[in-house]
Amino acid sequence: MVKIGVVGCGYWGPNLIRNMVENSQVDQVTVCDLDPRKVAKIQQRYPTVKAAAGFDELVRSAAVDAVLVATPISTHAKLGKKVLEAGKHVFIEKPLAPTAAAAQELIELAAYKKLTLMVGHTFMFSPPVIRIKEEIDRKTLGTVFYISAMRVNLGLHQKDVSVVWDLAPHDFSILFYWLGERPVTVSALGRDSVLRGIPDVAFINMEFAGGAIAHVQISWLSPSKLRRTTVVGSQKMLVYDDTESLEKIKIFDKGVEYKNPDTFGEYQLSYRTGDIVSPQIKNYEPLGAEMSHFIECFTTGKKPLTDGECGLRVVEALAATDASLKAGGKVIRL
Amino acid sequence: MVKIGVVGCGYWGPNLIRNMVENSQVDQVTVCDLDPRKVAKIQQRYPTVKAAAGFDELVRSAAVDAVLVATPISTHAKLGKKVLEAGKHVFIEKPLAPTAAAAQELIELAAYKKLTLMVGHTFMFSPPVIRIKEEIDRKTLGTVFYISAMRVNLGLHQKDVSVVWDLAPHDFSILFYWLGERPVTVSALGRDSVLRGIPDVAFINMEFAGGAIAHVQISWLSPSKLRRTTVVGSQKMLVYDDTESLEKIKIFDKGVEYKNPDTFGEYQLSYRTGDIVSPQIKNYEPLGAEMSHFIECFTTGKKPLTDGECGLRVVEALAATDASLKAGGKVIRL
Amino acid sequence: MVKIGVVGCGYWGPNLIRNMVENSQVDQVTVCDLDPRKVAKIQQRYPTVKAAAGFDELVRSAAVDAVLVATPISTHAKLGKKVLEAGKHVFIEKPLAPTAAAAQELIELAAYKKLTLMVGHTFMFSPPVIRIKEEIDRKTLGTVFYISAMRVNLGLHQKDVSVVWDLAPHDFSILFYWLGERPVTVSALGRDSVLRGIPDVAFINMEFAGGAIAHVQISWLSPSKLRRTTVVGSQKMLVYDDTESLEKIKIFDKGVEYKNPDTFGEYQLSYRTGDIVSPQIKNYEPLGAEMSHFIECFTTGKKPLTDGECGLRVVEALAATDASLKAGGKVIRL
Amino acid sequence: MVKIGVVGCGYWGPNLIRNMVENSQVDQVTVCDLDPRKVAKIQQRYPTVKAAAGFDELVRSAAVDAVLVATPISTHAKLGKKVLEAGKHVFIEKPLAPTAAAAQELIELAAYKKLTLMVGHTFMFSPPVIRIKEEIDRKTLGTVFYISAMRVNLGLHQKDVSVVWDLAPHDFSILFYWLGERPVTVSALGRDSVLRGIPDVAFINMEFAGGAIAHVQISWLSPSKLRRTTVVGSQKMLVYDDTESLEKIKIFDKGVEYKNPDTFGEYQLSYRTGDIVSPQIKNYEPLGAEMSHFIECFTTGKKPLTDGECGLRVVEALAATDASLKAGGKVIRL
Repeated sequence: MVKIGVVGCGYWGPNLIRNMVENSQVDQVTVCDLDPRKVAKIQQRYPTVKAAAGFDELVRSAAVDAVLVATPISTHAKLGKKVLEAGKHVFIEKPLAPTAAAAQELIELAAYKKLTLMVGHTFMFSPPVIRIKEEIDRKTLGTVFYISAMRVNLGLHQKDVSVVWDLAPHDFSILFYWLGERPVTVSALGRDSVLRGIPDVAFINMEFAGGAIAHVQISWLSPSKLRRTTVVGSQKMLVYDDTESLEKIKIFDKGVEYKNPDTFGEYQLSYRTGDIVSPQIKNYEPLGAEMSHFIECFTTGKKPLTDGECGLRVVEALAATDASLKAGGKVIRL
Repeated sequence: MVKIGVVGCGYWGPNLIRNMVENSQVDQVTVCDLDPRKVAKIQQRYPTVKAAAGFDELVRSAAVDAVLVATPISTHAKLGKKVLEAGKHVFIEKPLAPTAAAAQELIELAAYKKLTLMVGHTFMFSPPVIRIKEEIDRKTLGTVFYISAMRVNLGLHQKDVSVVWDLAPHDFSILFYWLGERPVTVSALGRDSVLRGIPDVAFINMEFAGGAIAHVQISWLSPSKLRRTTVVGSQKMLVYDDTESLEKIKIFDKGVEYKNPDTFGEYQLSYRTGDIVSPQIKNYEPLGAEMSHFIECFTTGKKPLTDGECGLRVVEALAATDASLKAGGKVIRL
Repeated sequence: MVKIGVVGCGYWGPNLIRNMVENSQVDQVTVCDLDPRKVAKIQQRYPTVKAAAGFDELVRSAAVDAVLVATPISTHAKLGKKVLEAGKHVFIEKPLAPTAAAAQELIELAAYKKLTLMVGHTFMFSPPVIRIKEEIDRKTLGTVFYISAMRVNLGLHQKDVSVVWDLAPHDFSILFYWLGERPVTVSALGRDSVLRGIPDVAFINMEFAGGAIAHVQISWLSPSKLRRTTVVGSQKMLVYDDTESLEKIKIFDKGVEYKNPDTFGEYQLSYRTGDIVSPQIKNYEPLGAEMSHFIECFTTGKKPLTDGECGLRVVEALAATDASLKAGGKVIRL
Repeated sequence: MVKIGVVGCGYWGPNLIRNMVENSQVDQVTVCDLDPRKVAKIQQRYPTVKAAAGFDELVRSAAVDAVLVATPISTHAKLGKKVLEAGKHVFIEKPLAPTAAAAQELIELAAYKKLTLMVGHTFMFSPPVIRIKEEIDRKTLGTVFYISAMRVNLGLHQKDVSVVWDLAPHDFSILFYWLGERPVTVSALGRDSVLRGIPDVAFINMEFAGGAIAHVQISWLSPSKLRRTTVVGSQKMLVYDDTESLEKIKIFDKGVEYKNPDTFGEYQLSYRTGDIVSPQIKNYEPLGAEMSHFIECFTTGKKPLTDGECGLRVVEALAATDASLKAGGKVIRL
């Protein structure tokens, strides 16, 4: 049985708390927040949850083995560092840090302290994302030619971050997981349509060393919610639509094949169209799986799927996107 | 009554021929093609159509007032020039020419000869595209923040051109028409997935002087046919889905407004969500309207909606896209 | 401030309890259930909720002004009667009673005792259903020709009732509300596909005195969830799709008009097709509105929208459906 | 090579003529119509088609081996009879005859004359319908519990027939083909919303001896085009949506199983949910296959898939539907 501390009871924290309270391996959850009303609300809903007087008390508490950080992005690195310095394992919400340097520092500190550092890239624990990873690894799709992802909605503008730091961590973590690599170049065009200085739409292009290219489109300003990703491979193609309840993944047995030129030197293209299959996907809450994985990692020493390196790769790509946006779409090499 | 010549009876030519045969202002259609079987097939279907022995005979024929050029892209400029030199009005299929210089030369020649030069950007005669142009001009949408267009399918690979020159002319002509301007920068990432040297997918980003940004995604390698364009404005947003039969346009009365900061300097965002309206759109064949417009223009001297300048703007953007693709996504300034 | 008792903490009761706990007019909620574990679970989640030792204690408690009955259908009438006899207002989940006679008895008892009797036809408090009622009453649709409703899913088989008593109360209450009348005939064909004697699919046809006809299709055995109702009127038509999040209602400005025969006695039909509008619908939980309405009714003496007569009409139609099912589809006159 | 005569060049006849002109086994097509302009229009489009002076000349012509009857329904039986009497094979558009007696007479006459009689139930030659027949016959779906079909649109009102005789022949022929039997009872509720005496909407329920039940909903008055049929079996379920271009059939590996009661006599239901597969369907024009089948049958003596008995079963069900409509939904036993 483990004892968990949670810092931040705002928008996302309560989801972490609920999962930890319901987790059979957890026997104590302690929380803190700058706003005592938020703590009170949590305790009303989960009477077994304890409140720490503040962050410092929480990280030093003997009743806390590991800490989850669910605070505003700008504080992730600073708080994460204090948790590690206090000798506790830490789970930090995505994105890991505001800069690659800060992310790197966390990685090194965790290594030095021999503590677990995990990042909350929850989609990597989502059944459809895992299923697609399996299809790609099993080469069902053949070589991945390109990926096109769209994550748009009439969404809540964030005060402290752009749409890039708010939404792109989802798609970046998913894409890098699927392809097993981070991009070698990033370029992006965006616009701060509503609030000066805070981009709310971005068109991001990426190249990978393995040959794949990707487009990620994110926006807080869109007429309807779209969460649609297309993966096109040499053997099959698939569409992952996270807004669908029944058919989240559709695998199309489609492709074009290039036959060796015949004696007259003419190339021959052959089109193939077969069944469309929407595989039955397991149905569980990704966040629950993520919490269990964190507990497993820090109790056994296992390397987290979404470790610090994973978080760093995403931060680097976010920073490159920002740099490209500021330079009018210039290609940034990573 | 006018007499029309058509060069090229391949994939697209028969559509032009059918519309001209059925046009009440046309009393003679003469055609030619390098392949006599294609001409024979046309004549079997339309017994009143005459065949010229070849291109030279056709352009010189006294029974031809104006010539439609529906041949492979690489021949557009050369054939168009000969038509103009023969003193005939000319309609050239999109894209107008393989280079901006060649397009410019056609424009100047037509001006010098006082002949009509029109380009086959048929979507600019399509009822939903015209309807959206009206909405934008009437400021229903407010300021256009961004446009995102997708035109993908498991499509026929072209032998002589990339997916850019095949599909992007549609979206480029539509976007430049709606916004009333051409882009100031273009950048693009693409890949020649199947045939070496012939890109079959491209992610194209564009900035316009008026402030709008746009993304155009085109592909011959996609699991399902998508022709979906989103236009996001400060007052309303719309989706134009050309694969829908009933609801091609949906106008969303949605938006985010930035209220002046209150006395405490906090910004206030106000979200608005109202009705969604799918306006009844006129139902006619764009190509028929285009043919009538061409006839009207060359008989009255009216400037075509899709004149040489319109064709040139598209060619320049295509060339910039190619240049960016070749330079790994570099931003090209127009 | 009022004091509410809730009988039944199983599948549906917790929803009633949650809404009453959160209702600002309620200062005490007391519950009971045959299963003490269910009561304990409720108290864990809502620590302010009191538990009565049993139903008899609950209905006699001075700390209870009105009782909500959320127990299995077969017990609705019996428990409801006891509540009224104890001098308390009563809200009974749909369907009101297993027979029309039992429903009638409840109505008379409530009238005699001058107590409020309300039935839980929650859909009549749902924003889209209310909006359609307004459209019909304002004659936007013209005369209602017919209604076709589908409520199917791979649903949970009930142990004690057929799909008719489980799902049809929704559509029956909605249809009778919209049309302002109950049917004059009912006929139904069904089948007990999985469990002998418990129909799990039914096709129900109904005629109304006002001329409208209706079809209601319900099933627990269907590949995907459909909750789609079409209302066809002489002036407009609409589709209400409760599975849609964004466009629950679409109003089609479509129709066929019969023009008076001309001098040659030929009838003339004229088809009309205009805009499709998806009106913005208010967004609130119907159950919350229903609970507030119940409180308003029993505190002020106002007649509930879903009063005993409303519940009786649904029970009569359910009984007629059963009778027709048993008689192989025979038309039952009400 | 065979010689085909076609009676009727109105709405549907031209489709038959086009297919016969393009059929490699046909060396002469002769047509007739009461309206000489329709004949002229056909000859303009298909110069090789000959015109007979009238029906009598056509059926007696030595240049005609078999005759296709594509005239108004009321004339099918009379003209079909004359064709057979003239010693020619006959293909009659659906429905075969206005009454079961007339259909029976045609069957007997064809048998007596040893001539082929085929009915134009084209959907039985449609690739998705055939594919579903194969699935049912292979017992992929298990026992068919029920079928629900919807064929509605804002459709052209017919002058001489109701929506039942216009649209139900499609679904009746499909359902009887799939189930391998005709219904034992039919009941229907409908309404003549627009034109007095001509029903334009009908809700039809049917029982089959094998246990399956079916609902067929047809309407000329509906906001959007739906052609959706659900087949629910004990092992799998499928949806056939003829308006889809890509995924006409979806097979859902879903079901509910009734496990034998355990020792305590409790029934156990087990729900199963697996992949959804949209099989690749062959893509050809059903009408072309139907024409080839007719030629094969009358040249070889093979029994047509859509023979007179098939046509008779549909006519009987249509007549029963009419009888039920007139008797207010009474169950008609066949």
